[in-house]
Amino acid sequence: MKIILIGASGTLGKAVANELGQRHDIVRVGRNSGDLHADITDSASIRALFEKVGSFDALVSAAGGVHFGALAEMGEKEFAVGLRDKLMGQVNLVLIGREFANDGASFTLTTGILSEDPIRYGASASMVNAGLEGFVRSAALELPRGMRINAVSPNVLVESPDYAPYFRGFKPVPAADAALGYARSVEGAQTGQVYRIW
Amino acid sequence: MKIILIGASGTLGKAVANELGQRHDIVRVGRNSGDLHADITDSASIRALFEKVGSFDALVSAAGGVHFGALAEMGEKEFAVGLRDKLMGQVNLVLIGREFANDGASFTLTTGILSEDPIRYGASASMVNAGLEGFVRSAALELPRGMRINAVSPNVLVESPDYAPYFRGFKPVPAADAALGYARSVEGAQTGQVYRIW
Ligand SMILES: NC(=O)c1ccc[n+]([C@@H]2O[C@H](COP(=O)([O-])OP(=O)(O)OC[C@H]3O[C@@H](n4cnc5c(N)ncnc54)[C@H](OP(=O)(O)O)[C@@H]3O)[C@@H](O)[C@H]2O)c1
Ligand SMILES: NC(=O)c1ccc[n+]([C@@H]2O[C@H](COP(=O)([O-])OP(=O)(O)OC[C@H]3O[C@@H](n4cnc5c(N)ncnc54)[C@H](OP(=O)(O)O)[C@@H]3O)[C@@H](O)[C@H]2O)c1
Repeated sequence: MKIILIGASGTLGKAVANELGQRHDIVRVGRNSGDLHADITDSASIRALFEKVGSFDALVSAAGGVHFGALAEMGEKEFAVGLRDKLMGQVNLVLIGREFANDGASFTLTTGILSEDPIRYGASASMVNAGLEGFVRSAALELPRGMRINAVSPNVLVESPDYAPYFRGFKPVPAADAALGYARSVEGAQTGQVYRIW
Repeated sequence: MKIILIGASGTLGKAVANELGQRHDIVRVGRNSGDLHADITDSASIRALFEKVGSFDALVSAAGGVHFGALAEMGEKEFAVGLRDKLMGQVNLVLIGREFANDGASFTLTTGILSEDPIRYGASASMVNAGLEGFVRSAALELPRGMRINAVSPNVLVESPDYAPYFRGFKPVPAADAALGYARSVEGAQTGQVYRIW
């Protein structure tokens, strides 16, 4: 398969590239890293990426930022960051990418455990992750030509020790375990699923 | 209690006003209807509302629009409608309202069954409803001064027969049953909950 991997140079993306790269051709994408550059917060940049890549069999997104911070110090502006980046950035990969995708292609987006299990400072992440999961369940009903869509929702990663103080008592998962969720989505047959890695 | 009810003139809002109005003082709000006018898509309008109302014991939102339509015909622009109106409109009621709320005040937002059970044409509603539920679970951890926050997620209402063709096989619920969810939230003690009315 020809797989576009957004965020291939990241903590999670590297593990996904290792897992899927064993059996497939990976097009690595980042803002400043990878084979091709694109910024998912900018639809024109997403469209230019797909025009360069042409048709594909799977798109995997392991990118998307949100504002982490105390709810007391967050207003509309801080919530807008995650809506534009992790939420609509990934949704736009689907809305634009479907035009270029082969029949039966899959889309796999990244959410995270905060959609279901909240922590302090995570209000935007919880909102965005949950919203993405709602989108995935619903878009699965309407994507044309046998296309599929799933999300992978990892726990905090062993490889991201900086996040550990915010996730006390959560058992971190190795990025390689999270990467299996992307293989299930890309190489399996299900659609509309959220693969929980925890 | 002094309860601000956004959307009091609506199909759902009327039933909530009937239920809570038996025991509490209701300040009815709509863009063009009610005792006071405000548009939740506009933060300045929300702030002006709270400045007029002053302190309060509960805020209930039974308002919020999204774009319904075929996913094939939806792009970034159509998704922006629900993000601005039903999602951030309701979130901004909390982010701004908390400054004016009495100790122990509650916020009750409205989602809907599509967060969990998708239908055709409902991709934006599923995203927005699920995102609100993620926000509610997380904001509950950080609201100050004993404030609480919950969501009510109604099935399609008996009183909204225009929606029935999109919800075949779903058993519609009377708006009066949905209104009980708002009473549980406002008059109960729980926080971070999603009350499913189905
Ligand atoms: N790390 C964790 O513990 C963890 C747990 C659960 C979920 N997640 C989620 O997994 C995703 C990746 O996390 P991570 O820790 O692997 O992040 P990371 O190490 O910072 O890597 C992010 C990757 O995405 C690319 N990227 C960032 N913004 C982009 C944009 N606007 N457009 C295109 N590419 C962009 C980066 O490349 P460039 O810098 O070249 O753009 C990089 O390759 C995030 O959504 C995160 O919330 C992470
Ligand atoms: N009806 C159902 O079957 C059903 C089922 C599940 C969930 N829901 C959800 O429940 C909510 C209310 O639905 P509904 O059917 O009761 O709607 P509705 O009958 O159209 O009533 C909407 C109410 O909200 C007010 N409103 C609308 N936009 C507003 C804005 N931007 N700012 C302030 N007030 C605004 C309206 O008053 P003005 O016109 O004066 O602004 C009206 O009072 C929606 O979020 C809907 O998704 C409905």
